[in-house]
Amino acid sequence: MIQPNMATMLCFIGCDAKVQQETLQDMLRAAADLSLNRITVDSDTSTNDAVVLMATGRSGVDLDEDVEAQAEFQDALTDLMLELAHGLVRDGEGATKFVTVQVDGAETHAQALEIAFSVANSPLMKTALFASDANWGRLAMAMGKVATPFDASLVDLFIGDVCLMRGGIKNPEYQEADGARVMAAEEILLHVNLNAGDCSETVWTSDLSHDYIKINAEYRT
Amino acid sequence: MIQPNMATMLCFIGCDAKVQQETLQDMLRAAADLSLNRITVDSDTSTNDAVVLMATGRSGVDLDEDVEAQAEFQDALTDLMLELAHGLVRDGEGATKFVTVQVDGAETHAQALEIAFSVANSPLMKTALFASDANWGRLAMAMGKVATPFDASLVDLFIGDVCLMRGGIKNPEYQEADGARVMAAEEILLHVNLNAGDCSETVWTSDLSHDYIKINAEYRT
Repeated sequence: MIQPNMATMLCFIGCDAKVQQETLQDMLRAAADLSLNRITVDSDTSTNDAVVLMATGRSGVDLDEDVEAQAEFQDALTDLMLELAHGLVRDGEGATKFVTVQVDGAETHAQALEIAFSVANSPLMKTALFASDANWGRLAMAMGKVATPFDASLVDLFIGDVCLMRGGIKNPEYQEADGARVMAAEEILLHVNLNAGDCSETVWTSDLSHDYIKINAEYRT
Repeated sequence: MIQPNMATMLCFIGCDAKVQQETLQDMLRAAADLSLNRITVDSDTSTNDAVVLMATGRSGVDLDEDVEAQAEFQDALTDLMLELAHGLVRDGEGATKFVTVQVDGAETHAQALEIAFSVANSPLMKTALFASDANWGRLAMAMGKVATPFDASLVDLFIGDVCLMRGGIKNPEYQEADGARVMAAEEILLHVNLNAGDCSETVWTSDLSHDYIKINAEYRT
């Protein structure tokens, strides 16, 4: 049950910065949007997620007054929460692969996210990841089923450093052995470029394995 | 790879009605929207679906002139295509259950469909169906993760003839033995009433089993 959207886990973070509650809330929301809200194991959410950020103020570093310190704090917070988010994915139900889905060249951030989550949540893409099968037809399918249209003839597809499709057609230099090599790894990058704009988004996910079924079918209420 | 949305299969239907192409196309679209576009096995679509309806005109029955015959034809066409659509679900990858998801009392048809497909495509709901586990928390979760808000305090949940939740709280008369009984069947009805409007929608789906993973991980490109 993991696609938090702030709805699957309890996360508590503490620090000693001096900062107004509203500023801290804004920073937490920004960091969560780039970390906990960018992961999915199975698309399902829970009703009892929460992330809480507390600040004691004891360091005396005033984030509301010191713009530079605020920027530094924001980066550190995002990095910390990304580490936690990636840990959730690696620990996902039955996960055997850690998968990064990167969408570049979208017209809007919403379009990039829609495609990234469609790929990350596709059962067929996820079973191909489990099988270490460089099935780029499933990757293209998962992109193509989104509601927002895009021009397929502009799309480039990569798995890791291997280009499978360029400008909507199979890369003539693609070799199956190269696809097999990058899919055999435990960490896999699915990288899409729509070549239609300058918006990018990245989400992280796992594969769909026998153990996912076992864990979720055997767990009884 | 089955949530057609006219994108996973080739379907050919023939008849001997006399009818204008445009009328026939409208009737086909209406029937498809109530049948082939109301099923899902895994939410994934294909690029090569098609449904084709041909009419020879040899019967002489003119559907454009005879309103009554047209209505009768529409009903028969919808029934035929529902039978085909249900056959696709029963034959779904690794399917062990045939599941009807009925949403009543929605404010709009779009809302009813959004909730029905969210339940039908939820991996956690589908593994509970595989396990014959009356896990109504997962049913409520799958409803609750949709984008369109609804009032949870009005919701009734039923599995078959068993009421699990009424007005947003657990039905005090619900017995686990009753839940176990209806979930043990091969045909299961998940029935939701939002009690917020008069729109209903029904979709059909299967469970998510070990064989789904086996079939889709072992099939190589």
